[in-house]
Formats: sequence, C-alpha cells, structure tokens
Amino acid sequence: MVLDLRPPAGDHFSDLRPMVAKLLVYVLSFAMLAIYWNNHHHLMQAVERIDGRVLWANMGLLFCLSLTPVATSWLGPNWRASGPVLAYGLVLLASAIAYTILTIQLLRIHAPDSSLAVALGQDWKGRLSMVAYIVAVLAALVVPVVSIAIYVGVAVVWLVPDRRIERVTFDRSTPLD
Amino acid sequence: MVLDLRPPAGDHFSDLRPMVAKLLVYVLSFAMLAIYWNNHHHLMQAVERIDGRVLWANMGLLFCLSLTPVATSWLGPNWRASGPVLAYGLVLLASAIAYTILTIQLLRIHAPDSSLAVALGQDWKGRLSMVAYIVAVLAALVVPVVSIAIYVGVAVVWLVPDRRIERVTFDRSTPLD
Amino acid sequence: MVLDLRPPAGDHFSDLRPMVAKLLVYVLSFAMLAIYWNNHHHLMQAVERIDGRVLWANMGLLFCLSLTPVATSWLGPNWRASGPVLAYGLVLLASAIAYTILTIQLLRIHAPDSSLAVALGQDWKGRLSMVAYIVAVLAALVVPVVSIAIYVGVAVVWLVPDRRIERVTFDRSTPLD
Amino acid sequence: MVLDLRPPAGDHFSDLRPMVAKLLVYVLSFAMLAIYWNNHHHLMQAVERIDGRVLWANMGLLFCLSLTPVATSWLGPNWRASGPVLAYGLVLLASAIAYTILTIQLLRIHAPDSSLAVALGQDWKGRLSMVAYIVAVLAALVVPVVSIAIYVGVAVVWLVPDRRIERVTFDRSTPLD
Repeated sequence: MVLDLRPPAGDHFSDLRPMVAKLLVYVLSFAMLAIYWNNHHHLMQAVERIDGRVLWANMGLLFCLSLTPVATSWLGPNWRASGPVLAYGLVLLASAIAYTILTIQLLRIHAPDSSLAVALGQDWKGRLSMVAYIVAVLAALVVPVVSIAIYVGVAVVWLVPDRRIERVTFDRSTPLD
Repeated sequence: MVLDLRPPAGDHFSDLRPMVAKLLVYVLSFAMLAIYWNNHHHLMQAVERIDGRVLWANMGLLFCLSLTPVATSWLGPNWRASGPVLAYGLVLLASAIAYTILTIQLLRIHAPDSSLAVALGQDWKGRLSMVAYIVAVLAALVVPVVSIAIYVGVAVVWLVPDRRIERVTFDRSTPLD
Repeated sequence: MVLDLRPPAGDHFSDLRPMVAKLLVYVLSFAMLAIYWNNHHHLMQAVERIDGRVLWANMGLLFCLSLTPVATSWLGPNWRASGPVLAYGLVLLASAIAYTILTIQLLRIHAPDSSLAVALGQDWKGRLSMVAYIVAVLAALVVPVVSIAIYVGVAVVWLVPDRRIERVTFDRSTPLD
Repeated sequence: MVLDLRPPAGDHFSDLRPMVAKLLVYVLSFAMLAIYWNNHHHLMQAVERIDGRVLWANMGLLFCLSLTPVATSWLGPNWRASGPVLAYGLVLLASAIAYTILTIQLLRIHAPDSSLAVALGQDWKGRLSMVAYIVAVLAALVVPVVSIAIYVGVAVVWLVPDRRIERVTFDRSTPLD
C-alpha cells in the first residue's frame, strides 16, 4: 500500500480513460514490489548469520525499492516519453543490483553447502534480469514502448511460479498478514 | 490509517458541508477494510499450510484492497455520479473475488474436516456479496444511489456479528494493536 | 509518522512563521496519539480474553484516531476559527468515548479482581477528559482559544507520568521500536 | 518509505535536472533515518529494563525523527537558502539531543557494567555530532553550503562501519524485513 494512485479530476466515465495507463503501471510496480517482498522473505528465512555489511546492503536495497513510488507516479501518465521510461528502468536496475549485492554479502559469510547458498544457486534469473534492464534503459532513448515490454516481460518471468517451489507447501510461519 | 482524508479548503463551518459525504464514504471504506482485515486474520489463524498459489492469491487480494483508497477519494465528492460509483463497486467486486480465490486455493490443500474448511463452511455471505456487487455495478449506470445503498447493505450484513462468533471469546494472541 | 506536515511554499525565514502554529498543533496531535498508543498497549498487556464486541470496539477506536490527521491539517493554519477548533474537539471527544467503550467491553468479560480491572480502576482521568472535551467543543463556538487551552491541558494531565507508574520498571517485552 | 518524493511535472529529460538536488537530499535523509533505525535497534537489544521516563524519551526521539520528511521536502528544492538549511539542521540537532536523552534515561536504570552501558561507552560520536550540528545551524545563516557539507560529513562518519562491529556477525534474530 506504499504506492500512491490519485483519483481522476472529474466525475465522468471519460475521466477514467487516462487512469488506464496509470493503473497498468501501478499493477507492474505492485507486482515488482510483491516479487521482491516474497524473495526477500524467503532469502531471510534461510539466513543463518548477518554482519554490518549485510545490514547496509539490506538498507541499500530498501533505498532503491523506496524510489519505486516516485518512478511509478512519473511513468503513469507519461509512459510514451523517454525520460520517465528510462528513470523507471534505472530504479528497476538499481534494485536488481542492490539485491544481488545483498546476496553476495550473505554468501560471503555462509558455507557453500548452507541452505542459503543452495537456495540461491546460480541465480540466472537475477543476472538475466539485470541484462534485460540495461537493454531496456538504452532502448528507452529510442523506443520507450520496447522498454516497457521488457519490464513487463521480466516481471512475468518472476511471477510465473517455479515448478519446484509450486509443489512445496510451507508451514504457517510464513506471514500472510 | 491507509485511507486519506483531505481537510476543507476554508475555515468556516459551511466548509464542513462537503465533508459530510466524504466522511460517510470514508466510514464505508474503513468498515470494508476492517471487515477484510478481521476475516483475513481469522482465516490465517486456521491455515495449516500454504504454497506458491496461495501466496499469489494473497497478493492478488492485497492488490485489490490497495485500490480502495483511490476509489474512496474519487467517490467522496462525486457520490451522485455513475463513474465513481461504478469504479468503487468494481474495486469491491474485485476484492470479493480475490478473497474467494484465496479461500479456494486454501481449501485445495486442506482436508475437508480441517478447522479451516469447517470455518469457511458454505460461505453464503461471500457468494451473496458478489451477486450484490454485480447488481450494484450495473445499477450504477442508471441510479447510482441504489448502488451505494447496496454497498452499505453488504457492509452492514458483514458488520453485524455472527451470533455464534459473538459468544466465543478468544485468547490474547489475537492482535489488537 | 501518520501525521502529515507540509513544507512552506517559499524558501525564506519568514515562510517559517505560519509553520509555528502548524507545528504546535502537530505536537499536540502527536502527543495525543502517543498517549493513546501507550495506554492501549498497556491495556492490551492486561487483557486475558476478547470477543466479537471487543474487536469492533477496538475498530471503533482506530476509526476515531484515524481522523486525527485530517483534523490536525485543518486546525494547523486555522486555529483561531470556530469550525476547525470544534471539529478537532469532536475527534478528541469521539476517541475518548471509543476508548471508554473499549474498556467497558473488556471489563464485561474480565473478573472484577483481574489485573485489567484493577489497572483501569475508577478511570477518573478518562471521565474528566470527556467532560473537558464537551466543554471545549461548546466553547469553540464562542472563544476557540479557550478550547485549545483545554485540549492542551488534558494532554498535559495525561503526559505527566503517574507517580506510581514512574517508579515501576518494566521488562524488555514492551516494544520501543 | 516514510520519505516522500514527488515526480517531475513534465515528461522531458530536462525535468529530471531539478530532481537531482531533491534526490541527493532524499539520500541524506534516508541515510540518517537508517542510521537511527540501526542504532536504536541495537540499543534496544541491550536494554534490560525500562520505565515511564524511558518511554517518553523514546516518544521524544520518534517525534523529532517524524519531522525529517517535512524538513527534507523543504530542503530538496531550496538547498541554497538559509531558512530550509537551518530548519533541516535543527531537526538533525533535535534528533541527536533526543537520542542522547534516551541513552541517559536508560543508563540511569542500568548498572555501569551492563552490556548496555558498555555498548554505549563514551559515545564521542554522538557528542561530536551535536557540536557539528550546532556549528552547521549557525553556518546556515551565512554560508548554507557549508552546513550541508557538515550534514553529509556527520552521516558519513556514522555510515562507515565500526571496524569492531564489522567483524561481529549476529544471529538471525536481527530483523532485516
């Protein structure tokens, strides 16, 4: 509920038309934040120890994610313009890099056979996402619509549940509230 | 405290008049969110296991509920217009559907004699609410006031405590904070 | 951090002058919410059981307190006008009544010698506050400044720590975060 | 995510230029809040008992920190003007004083050899910060840029992890969520 959506100015049905793009961008940002929240939660479940560097890497991730609302508000009504599309991509890229740094800091103080290291595995999804975001940021300068397609594509890749995880059922400790 | 109410522009008593409708819509939205919060909390108390689909169904519910503030802000000063009344009803309908999907996903991985399945029972209230919302959304196109009466009616049905539940006293673990 | 304070429009020192009244009203509201948060937390520590009516009484209190931000925003720049001063007082009065209803619902299902009943005692502070708020709401129609003095007075009475409680030290379980 | 950043008005790259200063001030405020959050969390880990005065000292700290968003919003677009720079410094100074008062109240009810007293030690960083803030507030009247350099400098001193703490690894109980 961190994302902020403003109501239309008038009270007509036609006032809803500019809301469509805003709502779709809102959906995209909500999905991205939900994915991070989910992954971060599962990551933390497997963590055995932390240190100062992990704490600051975590703060760095929080910082990048905290820029999502402003990037969303700017992109919503301006999704055809290079500037907002590029800015949105930079926030996504920064968040992906911050998450990777957090995992690197965690792997540094965990054994290679720890459940954390096993769970993270090769993390090809994470690496691929960063490459996709770099491409999207560059594409924003020329064809912003392609960038948005890439953002949506990456979100879909993360949203489609892993077949492995799908089969697993967790106990109640995972908070849903 | 997610809902956002703006103060009047002037400092006169008469500036409070347009606030009355806003405040009433605010009360309605607050009640709806409180009902979901309560029901969701009780639902989660009975959950024995979750999986990936449950997690995403839960995110879907959170997404729908997160649209309540913007629908509330739009309806507040425009409660006589079709557009805002219809939009508000769509958010209520989407939330009800999302909640039903969440219960279906939970029932899929719980035994028919689990406390969760027993607690959910036939859920005629939930089904009736969805039918009422569909009627209200259609009515909004013709007589928006009727739609609002339906929204209020459904909220009242949920607010009036079940006589069965009323008699039960819970232990302290239920958070009130 | 629920309360919302807007920065001045300009960048001059003189732009801070209208902020003084806003900041003082902000302090008052912050103190009132802190007092409720504290008292509510201590109340819940002593609770042994709850039921449906307690849950809804609690929601009623949350609802009244959730109106504090809008009442604060309205009063801030208009603290000399009857309307905002009266509206602010009504929110304070409603919150005090809601808190009393919550305690009544809790006492209904707790033994007279329970630690909850003992802790609540005669609650003369709560009764006196309600009387003071009624006087203040009426005074707002004639001399709003007197009402504000009453609001501040009640807050001070609650802020000055009870000599009895002052001597008690709690264990770490009380959350400070 | 308490800090609030508004998107640019237009959709051009050039609209990002005024955002640079806003973003840098946002980074500074985020870092300050993160430092307090971290330190407060570690402080509370070592607390063995609290009393009424500690509770109110804690509320005082929360109050000062709650003024960070408004000070940030004002400073962002006006970082060259004396008023906003001075106001920002007053919030930093007030927060530092409130934190010191909290530690004094805690030390009053803890033994000199308690882990809390040992962890706090001489707290030269805290004292130095307050002196730096007083200098910065005075400097804001003449050369606001120097004040901002001091704010950044103090933040860097706190951000650079203590070599001692860096080596320590904590167990999972420290919340990262």
